[in-house]
Amino acid sequence: MSDDKRLTPAQLGVGDMDPEEFRAAAHRVVDRVADYLAGLEAYPIVPDLKPGDVRSQLPATPPGSPEPLDDILGDYARLIEPNITHWQHPGFMAYFTSIASGPGILGEWLATGLNSNVMFWKNAPASTELEERVVEWLRSMLGLPGDFDGMFTDTASVSSLLAVVAARHSIPGLDTTEKGMAGHPDMPRLRMYCSTEAHFSIEKAAVVAGVGREGVRRIPADDEYRMRPDLLAEAIAEDRDAGWLPFCVVGTVGTTSSTSVDPAGALAEICRREGLWLHLDAAYGGTAALVPEMRSLLEGWERADSIVVNPHKWMWTPFDASLLLFRAPERFREVFSLVPEYVSASVTAGAHNYNEYGIQMGRRFRALKMWMLIRYFGAHGMAERVRHHVRMAASLRDRIDDDPDWERLAPVPFSTVCFRYRPAGLADRSEQPEIGRQLDAWNEEILNRVNASRRIYLSHTRLAGRYAIRVTLGNLRARTEHVERCWDLLEAAARGVDFGGKTL
Amino acid sequence: MSDDKRLTPAQLGVGDMDPEEFRAAAHRVVDRVADYLAGLEAYPIVPDLKPGDVRSQLPATPPGSPEPLDDILGDYARLIEPNITHWQHPGFMAYFTSIASGPGILGEWLATGLNSNVMFWKNAPASTELEERVVEWLRSMLGLPGDFDGMFTDTASVSSLLAVVAARHSIPGLDTTEKGMAGHPDMPRLRMYCSTEAHFSIEKAAVVAGVGREGVRRIPADDEYRMRPDLLAEAIAEDRDAGWLPFCVVGTVGTTSSTSVDPAGALAEICRREGLWLHLDAAYGGTAALVPEMRSLLEGWERADSIVVNPHKWMWTPFDASLLLFRAPERFREVFSLVPEYVSASVTAGAHNYNEYGIQMGRRFRALKMWMLIRYFGAHGMAERVRHHVRMAASLRDRIDDDPDWERLAPVPFSTVCFRYRPAGLADRSEQPEIGRQLDAWNEEILNRVNASRRIYLSHTRLAGRYAIRVTLGNLRARTEHVERCWDLLEAAARGVDFGGKTL
Repeated sequence: MSDDKRLTPAQLGVGDMDPEEFRAAAHRVVDRVADYLAGLEAYPIVPDLKPGDVRSQLPATPPGSPEPLDDILGDYARLIEPNITHWQHPGFMAYFTSIASGPGILGEWLATGLNSNVMFWKNAPASTELEERVVEWLRSMLGLPGDFDGMFTDTASVSSLLAVVAARHSIPGLDTTEKGMAGHPDMPRLRMYCSTEAHFSIEKAAVVAGVGREGVRRIPADDEYRMRPDLLAEAIAEDRDAGWLPFCVVGTVGTTSSTSVDPAGALAEICRREGLWLHLDAAYGGTAALVPEMRSLLEGWERADSIVVNPHKWMWTPFDASLLLFRAPERFREVFSLVPEYVSASVTAGAHNYNEYGIQMGRRFRALKMWMLIRYFGAHGMAERVRHHVRMAASLRDRIDDDPDWERLAPVPFSTVCFRYRPAGLADRSEQPEIGRQLDAWNEEILNRVNASRRIYLSHTRLAGRYAIRVTLGNLRARTEHVERCWDLLEAAARGVDFGGKTL
Repeated sequence: MSDDKRLTPAQLGVGDMDPEEFRAAAHRVVDRVADYLAGLEAYPIVPDLKPGDVRSQLPATPPGSPEPLDDILGDYARLIEPNITHWQHPGFMAYFTSIASGPGILGEWLATGLNSNVMFWKNAPASTELEERVVEWLRSMLGLPGDFDGMFTDTASVSSLLAVVAARHSIPGLDTTEKGMAGHPDMPRLRMYCSTEAHFSIEKAAVVAGVGREGVRRIPADDEYRMRPDLLAEAIAEDRDAGWLPFCVVGTVGTTSSTSVDPAGALAEICRREGLWLHLDAAYGGTAALVPEMRSLLEGWERADSIVVNPHKWMWTPFDASLLLFRAPERFREVFSLVPEYVSASVTAGAHNYNEYGIQMGRRFRALKMWMLIRYFGAHGMAERVRHHVRMAASLRDRIDDDPDWERLAPVPFSTVCFRYRPAGLADRSEQPEIGRQLDAWNEEILNRVNASRRIYLSHTRLAGRYAIRVTLGNLRARTEHVERCWDLLEAAARGVDFGGKTL
């Protein structure tokens, strides 16, 4: 073993770090994190790195002997912290926001200390009951009826997978849970439906569940990127005629691309009529229901069989926390409850034994951070923060609408704006293929220039074939001045684009 | 909004907690956690609660207005911390150990502060490359060859599910990923194999993947609870004759019940010959490979197609962290990589884009806590800690073997001992059904009495029909004195059992 004098006796023994050594180190870690959060704007949002730049500075083999904590924390400060993409930075407006608020971090830290594994009530009584309460709180904060039960999972991908499996299990007359799906002479091919704009996690769920990519039929969207219920109904009828067995519709409340909202009420009506399971991916958009006056956007979502909303997106909860709500908990238990002898004594009536509702047996104590965050901000305070983001998005939308050189490419129901630079002189010709390609190239160049500033970070998408710059507001740390900076950088980038000598 | 003077301006505004308020609160949280870890032994391991006791003290509706942080932290101290089951307590010897070591907690806390989402290299460069390195480190620390690639997932249940889906995808001639599994006239029923002792997560994986419970054939174990390869070979032949399509074998290295080890080499040979995927669930037992002289126990595991080892079990990593190693990363990418336009620009060559290998798109930054833990303890130090646990288990085993009133019920390959109280006078008659039932009842009573001490917490299992008390050592905080206490409590409980006036 090493005889480095900076090593502690605990390192050289067989136990854990000494509690007082831990305390001292933890206070250093707190200051490190507090400094990081206080100084976020000093970082370039995306570090200037090539693949391998960090790896090449990390030893290829693990240390045999213990290393001094100073060295480890020093390497963290030198190699890790500056070399991540800073999702927490107020200028990060790409993808969907995923930031950790102060009270959320405090809750996560307390949960790490407890290391409570929320599998059975008996093994985690307070953790289980806090999860029950916080799920109830969130359900009511979202304005959903009391017959929704639910739980936390890690991600929307897993929440949606659980819903698809429960939907498959609920198909009358087919016991796919017991018998599986292959090789039954009477088993028809299964079909589920989502829009062309749905997240690829839905396809992953179908693949995992044995439905297959071909078992996912993508229904065209209207010109505002919402699933067309008339075409859904037609597709179901057509599939039934062709021998497919429709079993599930996945609607999206806030698509990843343009944040469009599928018409939940119309989908619910079709599902009721056809006997299909309706799952709603509201991972991002569901948060808007914290604001009572925004709930009309989601009208009908209360009729779904299952809904996923991700607190780790627009609810400022440290990653990970996905809320899965469902109406028929027994469907989940029938699929996922397999209780062997070594845990049978742990199953307690009168409370949730949460591992019986999903794939994972071990479950993190996610309710604690949510509980602290909700209490710290208050339900009204959370709604007010959502309103603030929606207002900032509206102000950016208005700027774009008021400027003849920019073109908005989708409605802005929430806090995400999709648009492109399209000089006024090209407005009449923007549908011409050659002009369209030119606009795509320019906008890609504009996005690259804005991102090269490293003070604002945006992503893009493609809408109706057009390259769209995409700005999401939802970061608690983003203030009006950051939206101003974003707009200034966009304008400067557009002015600086090399238009190849073309006359506009 | 509330006008409570203890509220801070940040709470009443629309931003996050002020960074300096966060710093002060975080230092309080650190002391709370350090106090908790230093004072663990003062807690009864399992609190004295009925379902609903905590819930009834939590308001049924969320607060509208912000609440003072003092109140929130006070409620945490009063309602949550004392009312969990204390997995971190040195007397917790139930199930499998899942404790968070000091350096692991520090790493998790830093990761929470960064909130780095390790989906694509570009969105998480240092986090991705640290994961690459730490996976390489662990692979080499486990003595596995360099052609294993891998990544972290949340749990063994998910790791095994990914492996089963990749195995299903790899069946020649069936494109289940594209076509799904139902309704193909030529699709045979799929069959996978595990032993009667395998974890129920394997059955869950089969259910989710559409293989179904009937698609899992459980192979009998020998009298040391290891899968019998001869019966596996027979089952495969029989299934092929009956029209099933065998595609996967799941062996277990350290079963949940008795920690038996399936003969990996023999399973690998059968899989090679039959063209089946071999997945090994080494969630617990894999850790033993940190100790070079213990690797012979796992002989042949290096021939598997995929292996799961859980650092959050016997490697003292805060929950969650499961290591999935695999030989054919392209199989995973073919199933799980679905890259839409809005992230296509994020796919970078020359590094892993980890979301392409699994279900979850968003991924926690788990490598950081592993990296800090490995460096703090050193690879040799980690091995020495495992040896210490194995030695403590061996000393308990020897006590049981040396005492004619106790009977060991399974071999002790790792750090888990299964046994029962069986008074010497009943040794000859313990196979009689009535005596067997009596022994079961007594041992259940002994376990309940030990657990009622709240200073030691054990679980049980059933082995060859017999009720077995089960002690796992693997907690870094457990010292020899805790094993002594465990034994003393067992003896006292056995002496105190009401034997119904029977003469022994």
